[in-house]
Amino acid sequence: MSQEFKQAALDYHEFPRPGKISVELTTPAETARDLSLAYSPGVAEPVREIAKDPDAAYRYTAKGNLVAVISNGSAILGLGDLGPLASKPVMEGKALLFKRFAGVDSIDIEVDAESPQAFIDTVARIADTFGGINLEDIKAPECFEIERALIERCKIPVFHDDQHGTAIVTAAGMINALELAGKKLEEARIVCLGAGAAASACMKLLINMGAKVENIYMIDRKGVIHSGRDDLTPEKAAFATETDLRTLDQAIEGADVFVGLSGPNLLSAENLLKMADSPIVFACSNPDPEIAYDLAKATRSDLIMATGRSDYPNQVNNVLGFPYIFRGALDVRATAINEEMKAAAVRALADLAKQPVTEEVLKAYGLESLEFGREYILPKATDSRLRAAVSYAVAQAAIDTGVARLPLPASYSN
Amino acid sequence: MSQEFKQAALDYHEFPRPGKISVELTTPAETARDLSLAYSPGVAEPVREIAKDPDAAYRYTAKGNLVAVISNGSAILGLGDLGPLASKPVMEGKALLFKRFAGVDSIDIEVDAESPQAFIDTVARIADTFGGINLEDIKAPECFEIERALIERCKIPVFHDDQHGTAIVTAAGMINALELAGKKLEEARIVCLGAGAAASACMKLLINMGAKVENIYMIDRKGVIHSGRDDLTPEKAAFATETDLRTLDQAIEGADVFVGLSGPNLLSAENLLKMADSPIVFACSNPDPEIAYDLAKATRSDLIMATGRSDYPNQVNNVLGFPYIFRGALDVRATAINEEMKAAAVRALADLAKQPVTEEVLKAYGLESLEFGREYILPKATDSRLRAAVSYAVAQAAIDTGVARLPLPASYSN
Repeated sequence: MSQEFKQAALDYHEFPRPGKISVELTTPAETARDLSLAYSPGVAEPVREIAKDPDAAYRYTAKGNLVAVISNGSAILGLGDLGPLASKPVMEGKALLFKRFAGVDSIDIEVDAESPQAFIDTVARIADTFGGINLEDIKAPECFEIERALIERCKIPVFHDDQHGTAIVTAAGMINALELAGKKLEEARIVCLGAGAAASACMKLLINMGAKVENIYMIDRKGVIHSGRDDLTPEKAAFATETDLRTLDQAIEGADVFVGLSGPNLLSAENLLKMADSPIVFACSNPDPEIAYDLAKATRSDLIMATGRSDYPNQVNNVLGFPYIFRGALDVRATAINEEMKAAAVRALADLAKQPVTEEVLKAYGLESLEFGREYILPKATDSRLRAAVSYAVAQAAIDTGVARLPLPASYSN
Repeated sequence: MSQEFKQAALDYHEFPRPGKISVELTTPAETARDLSLAYSPGVAEPVREIAKDPDAAYRYTAKGNLVAVISNGSAILGLGDLGPLASKPVMEGKALLFKRFAGVDSIDIEVDAESPQAFIDTVARIADTFGGINLEDIKAPECFEIERALIERCKIPVFHDDQHGTAIVTAAGMINALELAGKKLEEARIVCLGAGAAASACMKLLINMGAKVENIYMIDRKGVIHSGRDDLTPEKAAFATETDLRTLDQAIEGADVFVGLSGPNLLSAENLLKMADSPIVFACSNPDPEIAYDLAKATRSDLIMATGRSDYPNQVNNVLGFPYIFRGALDVRATAINEEMKAAAVRALADLAKQPVTEEVLKAYGLESLEFGREYILPKATDSRLRAAVSYAVAQAAIDTGVARLPLPASYSN
């Protein structure tokens, strides 16, 4: 990042007032009568209704459109464990994206907890305030236990976006990339560099969608995760394969797909040259990918490449997912975001990239044309069709799997 | 409440959308550049600044203007313990009032905790998210322990409004009422019916401002709180007096002041007749006061009366206090709301009632004139001068007592 950009980022956060979000009124509060309805004595009426029927909270309070973005700051972006308070700009940013893209009211909560259990207890106790919970920037392996426990304890959807949001967008791009490369997910040999929360969620989702676990080589700091290792967490052990391969250099030989969720410049041009025909490289380390875009393209002309960056084609950007996934879940009052809903989001995203792009998108990106192909396997972040497409798919999947408590809203049939 | 009013209150909460507050953006989020500043990669800059210096959170996030309204729903208005979720409309209402009257962004958090300690732990762990914490509708005696512990554990102001907000507004009205009655707080014989959180905070504040504890007769469900009782909580024991008086009927004889924070119709006309000349009655039970306004006025023509109702003169309304108290505290980044700040708020409120009212106030209440006197001892809730007057007094007191971390903002000198 240039010094100029860094300063612009600080200025953006400081002005016109500190931060990026505010709380506003949605009802009139001018006259004495307004106030008597908003607060005492009128407010006693919705209180009584909710005391009789907890679901009335969705009718008389902001709960049903309110998502908490909750973190302990233990894995902030690529910056590491900087603590809860330092994560606040990221969480506010997520709240901003929720509102901007899907009209979801969202507030950040930073939790300073001494243990995963304390974090779980804290979030579970405040959960009724919200219609959904987006967990964010919580390090592995604690994030697995935390999400599992909160899904069990809360009556509302709980979703760790670093895991599932990343997985959904990655899988959508992967389906399209494989189609373009003329390969099948069921047969693809996949190397996943990185074995954290995002990596295991990505591989799990690809497996749910057809990939074979025996074709996946997941690599952590100690090398390939294989069945002979005795140092594996349960999450890593699920990906242990019977293999003699031990290093990235060995595993990459003949691989169809490389997914990087690790760190900058860990995939060399030599590695890339060893991959199969029409290799697919998702180098998602941000801001510096596992292999620089220009180097990769210069090394293999038959490459299909995606990164986490907005300044190259095919950005794997979580904002394609989480706002609309929650929008769909909230709109049918889903009690969870299950595997079918995630798969539906994947398919909706992959499909949308195959639709002709709108003038709006071309204009926003200053492009003459944009067609489904190697340089366009995922929708653009500001494509306004995302909301209808992804929310609908997620809501419908919630209904189909019996976790929706409301039918599809009338607005969805437009 | 009429059926028509009840329905209007429900409609007010349901439309145009459920609830009363939303979250909005304060920065642009349209272009790709906007988004790169608001979120990754730009957001890393404020994250790094806050990791280096926690105070940078006040510069780059919404923290400094954000107050959480937190409840467990154990004492909702006069309705009792209906649980956390049922309290949500009240807490959202409080958030609405914070914004409407003092520009404070505020979000409600309902806590479902199994014990006071669990409540304390939960709130302490999320406290860094906010610039201040307004505790609300938590029953006594737990509320005392909860507030005490949170004040100690949190670096930001923690304020239980049912206690201190009520006390501040009551004390402001009381000072003016005593002046009009030609009486001194130091000599006034005070009967306080009710011994809950609000009652003990009111009496404590009156004592801090000059009232004598030996002149105060506090009455709970079992009668006068006297030194011979062995069933008193520490909070009640602080008000135990050496006396033979046992009942309201006995204690009211010759009393200068009656403060009711109990329930409807507990003060009879006979009781009122026994009070001293120019009696002062603050009958704050809501919506039905300890003695009906018309009955009280018909019984004693020399009466000065206040209630919690907006449809009679002299409404003791917490909204006169909490928005501006937090405004002042936030503006100088006070680490606490101490006794001097509370006393400053009392004096500012009492003083404002002595200023000539503005045209704006007369118009809002449809009045020809309004002058300091028996029917006007407290400012009106929609008096726009409250913000400057009370916030300034509170902020200055914070500076004077060394709990402010910033000087008075330039805007205060207008």
